[in-house]
Amino acid sequence: MEIKSDIQIAQENTPEKINVIADRLGISDDYVENYGKFKAKIDYNILREKAGQPDGKLILVTAITPTPAGEGKTTTSVGLTDGLNRIGKKAVAALREPSLGPVFGIKGGAAGGGYAQVVPMEDINLHFTGDMHAIGAANNLLAAMLDNHIQQGNALGIDPKKITWKRCVDMNDRQLRHIVDGLGGRMQGVPREDGYDITVASEIMAILCLASDIDDLKARIARIVVGYTYDNRPVTAADLKAQGAMTALLKDALKPNLVQTLEHNPAFIHGGPFANIAHGCNSVMATRMALKFGDYVVTEAGFAADLGAEKFFDIKCRMAGLHPSAVVLVATVRALKYHGGVAKADLNEENLEALEKGMPNLLQHLRNMKEVYKLPVVVAINAFPTDTKAELDLVEAKCRELGVNVALSEVWAKGGEGGVALAEEVVRLCEEPNDFSFSYDVNDSIEEKLNDIAKKIYHADGVDFTPGAKKQMKELTELGFGATPICVAKTQYSFSDNPKLLGAPSGFRITIRNLKISAGAGFIVALTGDIMTMPGLPKVPAAEKIDVDSTGRISGLF
Amino acid sequence: MEIKSDIQIAQENTPEKINVIADRLGISDDYVENYGKFKAKIDYNILREKAGQPDGKLILVTAITPTPAGEGKTTTSVGLTDGLNRIGKKAVAALREPSLGPVFGIKGGAAGGGYAQVVPMEDINLHFTGDMHAIGAANNLLAAMLDNHIQQGNALGIDPKKITWKRCVDMNDRQLRHIVDGLGGRMQGVPREDGYDITVASEIMAILCLASDIDDLKARIARIVVGYTYDNRPVTAADLKAQGAMTALLKDALKPNLVQTLEHNPAFIHGGPFANIAHGCNSVMATRMALKFGDYVVTEAGFAADLGAEKFFDIKCRMAGLHPSAVVLVATVRALKYHGGVAKADLNEENLEALEKGMPNLLQHLRNMKEVYKLPVVVAINAFPTDTKAELDLVEAKCRELGVNVALSEVWAKGGEGGVALAEEVVRLCEEPNDFSFSYDVNDSIEEKLNDIAKKIYHADGVDFTPGAKKQMKELTELGFGATPICVAKTQYSFSDNPKLLGAPSGFRITIRNLKISAGAGFIVALTGDIMTMPGLPKVPAAEKIDVDSTGRISGLF
Repeated sequence: MEIKSDIQIAQENTPEKINVIADRLGISDDYVENYGKFKAKIDYNILREKAGQPDGKLILVTAITPTPAGEGKTTTSVGLTDGLNRIGKKAVAALREPSLGPVFGIKGGAAGGGYAQVVPMEDINLHFTGDMHAIGAANNLLAAMLDNHIQQGNALGIDPKKITWKRCVDMNDRQLRHIVDGLGGRMQGVPREDGYDITVASEIMAILCLASDIDDLKARIARIVVGYTYDNRPVTAADLKAQGAMTALLKDALKPNLVQTLEHNPAFIHGGPFANIAHGCNSVMATRMALKFGDYVVTEAGFAADLGAEKFFDIKCRMAGLHPSAVVLVATVRALKYHGGVAKADLNEENLEALEKGMPNLLQHLRNMKEVYKLPVVVAINAFPTDTKAELDLVEAKCRELGVNVALSEVWAKGGEGGVALAEEVVRLCEEPNDFSFSYDVNDSIEEKLNDIAKKIYHADGVDFTPGAKKQMKELTELGFGATPICVAKTQYSFSDNPKLLGAPSGFRITIRNLKISAGAGFIVALTGDIMTMPGLPKVPAAEKIDVDSTGRISGLF
Repeated sequence: MEIKSDIQIAQENTPEKINVIADRLGISDDYVENYGKFKAKIDYNILREKAGQPDGKLILVTAITPTPAGEGKTTTSVGLTDGLNRIGKKAVAALREPSLGPVFGIKGGAAGGGYAQVVPMEDINLHFTGDMHAIGAANNLLAAMLDNHIQQGNALGIDPKKITWKRCVDMNDRQLRHIVDGLGGRMQGVPREDGYDITVASEIMAILCLASDIDDLKARIARIVVGYTYDNRPVTAADLKAQGAMTALLKDALKPNLVQTLEHNPAFIHGGPFANIAHGCNSVMATRMALKFGDYVVTEAGFAADLGAEKFFDIKCRMAGLHPSAVVLVATVRALKYHGGVAKADLNEENLEALEKGMPNLLQHLRNMKEVYKLPVVVAINAFPTDTKAELDLVEAKCRELGVNVALSEVWAKGGEGGVALAEEVVRLCEEPNDFSFSYDVNDSIEEKLNDIAKKIYHADGVDFTPGAKKQMKELTELGFGATPICVAKTQYSFSDNPKLLGAPSGFRITIRNLKISAGAGFIVALTGDIMTMPGLPKVPAAEKIDVDSTGRISGLF
C-alpha cells in the first residue's frame, strides 16, 4: 500500500469556507476577519458579547517523556476533536501555531499528521496569518528603541553590558546566536555583545499567549525588563515608551486564528511559545474563545507532562482562571520500550520485558495528573502497526491498577473514526467532578516553589542552586518578583535534569544554574542548563526540497 | 479652522467592503483573497484569464527634484485617481506599499494625505498583508542557508570575505548596520563581518516588483549572486538550492493588494523597492492587473524624475513591455522657490525672482520627459494656501513655452474634486499618440549606458569612474552582465551627484564609485556615493506616540 505524505493528504482534501465553519460554531460574520478563504482571525470583541455564557469542558492532551520513537500529541489532539464530533459532541481544538524557521530545518510541518491534520497545512506552516512576523517586529522595535536610546545620550543610564533583551527572527540561523553589533564608528550605534533568538523564544510570544485582552497585553509589555542600569535598577519597555507602538504591532496577532481539521471541525491555532524558557501552550484568548463556542475543547501543551502539563496547570490555568476537566496522556508502545532500554533500531520487535521496564515513565506521569493536579486521566496509545496484542494488554493492565483506562488511538490512519474510543472515554471523564489543584502555592518563596515542582512532579530529592543562581534568587526576590509562578527550563528527555536518565529515575537532585525574570509574561524562568533558543540548519536543510509550481501550489513540505 | 490629521480623516471615513470594490472592477470573488474586510490580495491566475483583453492607459506621476518643502506624489496620484473617477472614467491607482520601519522613525505614514488617501491607512502602514515580512523571511532564509553551507563544510568554496548578501529587517535599526556574527565557537557559525539592510532595500523586493509571474520570480531568485568563491566565481541562490523554498515564502506576497481611496476607488498597493539601489516602482504584477481592469491607471515612481521616472521607463517599462501614455510632473511653488535659493523659513512669502530662478529644475525634467522619453506631460502644481496668483501665472507661462499645460491640484484639501482639472488634462494627453523611447540601448556597454543617462537625463558633461569601479565594470562585463539595464544610486536632491547643486546645474561630471550586480532583479547598480540602506531612529522616535485602545483602534500614526 502506498503511504501518502501529510501534504498529499491535505491537498487532496476539499476544505469548507472558513466562514461556514465559523457560522456553524455560532460566530457571526461581523467578527470573522478572513485571511483568504480558509483562514480567519476572530475579533476578540466577541468575547465581551459572550461573557455571560457558560464555558465548555477543557481537555488537556499531554504525553510521556519524548523519545526518538515519537508520540504524536498534535495528531492525537486533532483526531480526538474529530472523534468527539463523530459522536455528536460540539468539539473545538485549541492548538499551538508552528514556527516558520524549523520548517526549513529538519522538522517539517507541525499541523498534525496522516488523517488527523489541520488545513491549510502549507499556510499554517509558512506565514499563516502573520502572527510570528508581528511578534518579531514588536520584539525588534523594542531592541531598536533600546539601542537608539543609548546612542542618543542614554538618559536612563542603561549599562550596555547588562542588556538582556535580544533581537529575534523566525529562522534557524546559528550564525546569529552570538554577534557584536553597533560597529562602524560613532554614528552607527554602540558596540556591544548581542545575539538573536528564534521568534517563538521571544518573551513577546509568551506575553501574547498569556494576555487576557489588549489592555492586559499592553500592561504586560510595559513591564518587560530589557536590562539594567549602571546601578542595577531594571529598565522596562515602559521606560523606553515602547509599549503603545509594540501593542499596535500586535493588535491583530492577538486575535485567535480559526482553521479546520480535515473533517471540517473547527480548530483555533494561535500562539506557540517554547516549552522550556516559556510555558509552551496556545494563547489564553484562543482557549477562552474555544470554550465559549465549543462544548468540548481539546488543547495541548509542549513536551512531556512534567514540563508541558505542569506549566499548563501552574502557569496558564492559574493566570487565566481555567479549570480543566480531563487529561489525555499520549504514549506509544515503541516509546515505552525505548524507555525500557530498547535501541531505536529494535523497536519493531515485541519485547514485553522492556515494555514493563519502560512503563514507570507512563505511570509516574499518570500519578502526577491524578494525585498532584487531581484530574481524571485517560491514556491514549497512538497505534503503530508493529504493536502486538500482548504489548497493548500489558499497558492496559498496568494502567488499570491506577484506575486509568487506555484507549487505542488510530487517528493518524483513520481520522476521527480512529478517535471514537478515546472520545467516548474523554466524555465519560468530563462528567466526573474533580478537585483541580496546583503543584505549588505562588506566594511561597522561589526556593519552596522549585522544591515543590522538583519533588512532586519530577520525583527528585530536592533542588540545588549554583552560587550565581542563589544570588539571582536573592536579587529577584528583592526586586519584588518573588511571588510569581516558576517556569522551569529543563531537558524534555528525562524527569531529571540529565537527558540520559530515562524511565522514572529516582535518587537525583535538580540543579538550578540561572534564574531570570520574564516580567511581562509574569514568571521567573529557572534554567537547569543551557537552553538552545536559536536552532541551526542541518547539513541538508529541508528547504532544499521545498518548491512551488506556477499556480502557487507548494510541494516538499511534509 | 481645525486641521484634521491624516489618521483622523481616514478613521472618519466609512470604507466599502473590498469585495464590492473588486466586483465593481470586474474581479470575481473567486480571485479575491480577503485580508480582513477592507484589504484583499488578487490571485494572479486571473491575468491568464484576461490575457486577451486590451490594456488601459498608463499614467506616470513623477516630480521635480525634492526639497524640504515637499511635493506630494502619492497624494497627487490618489487624488488624480479620484478625479478621473469623478469625470466618469474607470481609473485605478497602482502605488508602492510603505515600509514598516520608517513609521516608527520620523516619517509617519505613507498612504497619501489629507482627503487624498488610501485606506485602511493604519493597516497599510503597519503589517498590511505581510508582504514585507515575507520578503524579509525569503531574504533571511537565503542568508541562513549560505552561512549554514559554509559551516557544514563549504563544498562550494565560498569566501566569507566576499559575501555580498546581507540579512534584513523592516525596522530602522542603526545598531545592525555593521556587525560581526558567527561568534561563540566552532559550533556557532563562522565569524565574519556582516550587516543588515532595511527590508525594502533587499534585492528580493526589487525581484518581487519586476517578476512577471511565479516562474519568473523563481528564475530571478535562482540567479541572485550572494557572494564569490575563493577563486572569484559568483555563487548564486541556485547553487545553494534555495530558490524553491524562497519562492514558496513569496507565493502570496506576489499577489497584488487591493484597497480603496477615501472616495471608494480601487487602488493596488503592492511592492516598494528603494529608488536608489533599486528601481523605486510598485510591482509589475499590480501595474498589469490595474491595466487589465482599469481604463486609466495612475502609478508613481520614487524620488524625482531623473531617478524615479528614468528607472520606471528604462528598467520597469522595458522589462515588462509597458507603454505609458502620459506623465504628470508634480511640483510646488514653494519647492521651486527653494530651488531658486529661498531658505525654508521664508517660503511663505511671494518671491517671483526666486521662483523664476528655480523654474529650470521643473523645465529640465519636463524636457526630459518630452524629448528623451517622447511622452506628453502635464505639470500638477500641488496647491498651498501661500501660493499667489502671480506665482502660479509665472509657472504656467514658463511651462506653456514648452507646450506643456499646468493644472492646479487641490486634492489634499478637496479630494477628487480638487483633481478634476488635472484629470481632464490627463485624459486629453492620453489621446495623443506618442513615440515612447528609452534613454539608452540596453545592448550598449556599461560605460555608454551610464554616459547616456548622465548626459541626456542629468545634463552632466559625462561620467568618470574610480579605479575600483573601472575594475568592477570590467569584471561584470566578463561575467556576462554587460547587457543589463543600469540602476543609478545617486542623491535625490540634485540632478548631479552633489546634493548641494539645486535647480538645473550644468558643467559637472558624475563619478561612479561602485558597481554591483543585482542579477535576480536584472540590473547593475551604479553607486555615485554611499547610500544609506539601514536608517536609524531619531532622538524622539514616532513610535513613542503610537498607541492602541482596548478595541484595537490605533492612534498616533500621522
